[in-house]
Amino acid sequence: MTDRPTLPGAMPNAYQPGKGNLPPGDQALVARRQRLLGPAYRLFYETPVHLVRGEGVWLYDKDGKAYLDTYNNVASVGHCHPRVVEATARQSAIFASHTRYLHDGILEYAERLLAHFPPALSHVMFTCTGSEANDLAFRIARAQTGGTGFIVTENAYHGVTHAIAGMSPSLGAGVPLGEHVRTVPAPDPLRLAGDVGAAFAAGVQAAVDDLLRHGIRPAALIVDTVFSSDGVFADPPGFLAPAVGVIRRAGGLFIADEVQPGFGRTGQAMWGFQRHGLTPDMVSLGKPMGNGYPVAGLVMRPEVIESFGSKARYFNTFGGNAVAAATAMAVLQVVEDEGLMQNAATVGALFRAGLEDLATRHDALGPIRSAGLFLGAEIVAGGDPLAADAAACGRIVNHLRDNGVLISATGPRANVLKIRPPLVFSAENVAFFLDRLEAALKA
Amino acid sequence: MTDRPTLPGAMPNAYQPGKGNLPPGDQALVARRQRLLGPAYRLFYETPVHLVRGEGVWLYDKDGKAYLDTYNNVASVGHCHPRVVEATARQSAIFASHTRYLHDGILEYAERLLAHFPPALSHVMFTCTGSEANDLAFRIARAQTGGTGFIVTENAYHGVTHAIAGMSPSLGAGVPLGEHVRTVPAPDPLRLAGDVGAAFAAGVQAAVDDLLRHGIRPAALIVDTVFSSDGVFADPPGFLAPAVGVIRRAGGLFIADEVQPGFGRTGQAMWGFQRHGLTPDMVSLGKPMGNGYPVAGLVMRPEVIESFGSKARYFNTFGGNAVAAATAMAVLQVVEDEGLMQNAATVGALFRAGLEDLATRHDALGPIRSAGLFLGAEIVAGGDPLAADAAACGRIVNHLRDNGVLISATGPRANVLKIRPPLVFSAENVAFFLDRLEAALKA
Repeated sequence: MTDRPTLPGAMPNAYQPGKGNLPPGDQALVARRQRLLGPAYRLFYETPVHLVRGEGVWLYDKDGKAYLDTYNNVASVGHCHPRVVEATARQSAIFASHTRYLHDGILEYAERLLAHFPPALSHVMFTCTGSEANDLAFRIARAQTGGTGFIVTENAYHGVTHAIAGMSPSLGAGVPLGEHVRTVPAPDPLRLAGDVGAAFAAGVQAAVDDLLRHGIRPAALIVDTVFSSDGVFADPPGFLAPAVGVIRRAGGLFIADEVQPGFGRTGQAMWGFQRHGLTPDMVSLGKPMGNGYPVAGLVMRPEVIESFGSKARYFNTFGGNAVAAATAMAVLQVVEDEGLMQNAATVGALFRAGLEDLATRHDALGPIRSAGLFLGAEIVAGGDPLAADAAACGRIVNHLRDNGVLISATGPRANVLKIRPPLVFSAENVAFFLDRLEAALKA
Repeated sequence: MTDRPTLPGAMPNAYQPGKGNLPPGDQALVARRQRLLGPAYRLFYETPVHLVRGEGVWLYDKDGKAYLDTYNNVASVGHCHPRVVEATARQSAIFASHTRYLHDGILEYAERLLAHFPPALSHVMFTCTGSEANDLAFRIARAQTGGTGFIVTENAYHGVTHAIAGMSPSLGAGVPLGEHVRTVPAPDPLRLAGDVGAAFAAGVQAAVDDLLRHGIRPAALIVDTVFSSDGVFADPPGFLAPAVGVIRRAGGLFIADEVQPGFGRTGQAMWGFQRHGLTPDMVSLGKPMGNGYPVAGLVMRPEVIESFGSKARYFNTFGGNAVAAATAMAVLQVVEDEGLMQNAATVGALFRAGLEDLATRHDALGPIRSAGLFLGAEIVAGGDPLAADAAACGRIVNHLRDNGVLISATGPRANVLKIRPPLVFSAENVAFFLDRLEAALKA
């Protein structure tokens, strides 16, 4: 069980219909899902969780059982944060319409958001989902560079539109990559020889060369700046810079996908790219932006949209509507006012130290990587850091679920514990998690 | 001025920066938009409207001036409908999470929604936008048929993702169509010779033949079932059936884009395709589904997703979350409980009769086409139904705006008044509109 999952479209931690220990009511619900939603939907866990309520870092199932949410990065400021709920409700009752009328809300939010970026990144466009933001980046990069080639990591995930699913190899072999897409090895210090930055850049250079060899002009390199689905790679800070140099010398753009790392999660900065001391050409935003309300966006240097903007208009009916802007504004204000980036740094450091301490006592807990409250911990066999153990990882994830803690698994070998709690996570929550994880490691 | 707009990306009724009669405060807002949002955003009208509040069929600008909303199909059950606002607020405060946990809300909504479809259409998948729904249909059609060719009308609009913008010629010459996309003439009874159904089907057959001649297997014909952006074509009922026969004989699917006509707007039925006595393979839903909340979906026959579902999973982080389901449920209940489909039929008939009456006194008012509360009225020169007059149409749209009525223009010649008010529109609202339209026609 140390191999990469080979089933086409295999997903770590997916429920296998017919298995698990579901109560009859939930069995009926699963059957109803199959009948109504069809075969492309997936549930988490051997025994799916039936949730009904959320508050802060806690989720509750239909029987009132509490789960510590150590997974959901969408509810970044905490489930059902009253200030965010109130902002959505208030604006929904006043005016919800779109961006073809003048409205102050979208501009006030745009200003507040852009204040968190380097001055060179001074435009923002609004969509409803991270997929749409990356799809827009794809269109803009093609228009600006005249190129069509895109470079992504080997287990990247960037979204579900046709163009972006074609740049998301983690969706599995059943979803074809785009003809003009090339993949590069993730910046995994255990598996790349030598300096990570140089090795990763060499991979990008090889991809550029291969594109050119096929007569394809490079358009962009796009990476999730903490490489979430590749298994979480954040160190050493700065390692991304050489690869960005490579794509720019080839005439392509660098797109930072901040859908997962963005909005303070990495602790040291609002955006993952800042860890690497560089300024991207475009930055896509999503998941935590509205704490669950569907709002996302694309931040960019004005010069990259000159070509697209001279030829095309962009209108997203719900994107940046008055309710989206009010909700996103409330989220950003909570991140600022409650010091959540600082909390991600402090509690993230505690969390990592706790995991490292556990690893001294448990061979199965292999390499631990993190940036703030985005953590990945490899589960390995026999203490060998290279012996990925997906089966043991699955058992741990499900043991935690059964004992009131929600996380999931990730990485190309499905053996990385994927830990990204709401940013309001406390030291007490960390202690609770570590206690349950130790029980799972023992079991 | 009787020509098709030739400027790349030209949009009917777009604000031209630097023109119009904006007060200084709004001028500053326009400049701020340009600076913050960049060059791809567009505003409506010679003088954009600065809106702050909505209620029922009325919108209010910052000075308290009221506008009768005869345009916005998103706020289909009326702006800020209290029952919908309450559903969003209530569920936002309880639980907002995604479809990888079990939750009743999405299934209850799916059942209630699917009850409005023919039994053959028994699966629904949820996205956040109509663009995403059409993009998913695109992916499923390719997986199911093994084909890559898509057929759309000459001025179609289906969305803004890369794949779907490539099937949306109304976005203008600056947005390239997909290599495997073919366009066919709209079912315009004035411009197609002979029987509309036969002529439209002949266009689809020619497109199929051209695809095959290029070695491209057809995947699907997709149409907006009231042909909104082509200029509104609804009659005679049943005319679509022969074209659907053509694509099916060629091995392709038929996708009904109900993002604009759906949810009762056409008056006689919940969905535009029902007017044509056929059952599509897939049906995309969007705009009015959440009355402004970003929720959309794709309804399908189970057999079309067998291939896609066996190879791929689909997860849309915000799509079908608990708040989306609760909000969409409230909208559907209001449509049912307030009899809005019936209202669309009754008030739509009145509306059309009023326009036809006006047309007897005003040569500029040319052919009028409608289905329920989706109406299109051509503005023509010298009483000639074929002499499209985009300039006069623009003057009427702006005159109405200045006098408290919001509509827009559409069609390949930008000369069709685009009229699609919230479905709570009343006979009194129609009288108000006709009075202002007559004043505009005189001016």
